[in-house]
Amino acid sequence: MKLRRIQYFFSDFRIGQLFKLERIFTEEDVKIYANLIKDFNPIHIDEYAASQSIFKHRVVHGMLSSSLFSTLVGTNFPGAIYLDQSIFFKAPIFIDEQVIAQVLIQDIKLKKGRSILKLNTTISKMDQKIAVTGEAKILIN
Amino acid sequence: MKLRRIQYFFSDFRIGQLFKLERIFTEEDVKIYANLIKDFNPIHIDEYAASQSIFKHRVVHGMLSSSLFSTLVGTNFPGAIYLDQSIFFKAPIFIDEQVIAQVLIQDIKLKKGRSILKLNTTISKMDQKIAVTGEAKILIN
Repeated sequence: MKLRRIQYFFSDFRIGQLFKLERIFTEEDVKIYANLIKDFNPIHIDEYAASQSIFKHRVVHGMLSSSLFSTLVGTNFPGAIYLDQSIFFKAPIFIDEQVIAQVLIQDIKLKKGRSILKLNTTISKMDQKIAVTGEAKILIN
Repeated sequence: MKLRRIQYFFSDFRIGQLFKLERIFTEEDVKIYANLIKDFNPIHIDEYAASQSIFKHRVVHGMLSSSLFSTLVGTNFPGAIYLDQSIFFKAPIFIDEQVIAQVLIQDIKLKKGRSILKLNTTISKMDQKIAVTGEAKILIN
């Protein structure tokens, strides 16, 4: 029984497997998110205030960019349960900037008949520069 | 000069300072977020599918709940730069469930004349049960 489960599992996911998603966050997306979570930090919504900051332009909320990890998990591992996520903001992502979010299966462990996947999670800019990095763990029944 | 900066800083923030925010995520909020980040994991948007899961009801996206940390940072530390955030999902937060997000200043460090605040970040349910926990670092110029 246990062996069959492992076999089934490994036919679905394997270490090294990579899932990608491209995205551009528009001004409208940032406004919708700011209104949804009531985070009106001027660095995200006020072009003049942003121009006076070290970033010079409006930046997408870090937690909105990082939500792409949730999208990649929800899309590629439907029904999976998110256990944890670490996020390191390395570089700002600007409004209208194209980025690529990636989730790489780093490790697979079986625990009480369920699978825990350790994922390497990154968001890169078009010039390959890493904007966001981190790790996640998800549980698959 | 450096001393004045420290003095100014400590008059604004101190270790042990706590910021709170109450929130109920509605079905509408979850739909807006699902559409914004294109995460249509049935556990969040399909009541029947959710009823078949271990959670029994639709769960708010973990990255949406965790966005309250961004709200608390953006509101209480305007202009601050988010450096990192760890998130541990301990219990599901359901649609229409009231929660309290908290950010506690755990540590303050000065680095090159700027302040790095280490924050303890949690989201609790009304019965005090922890739903989300983690830590964040923010930079204040």
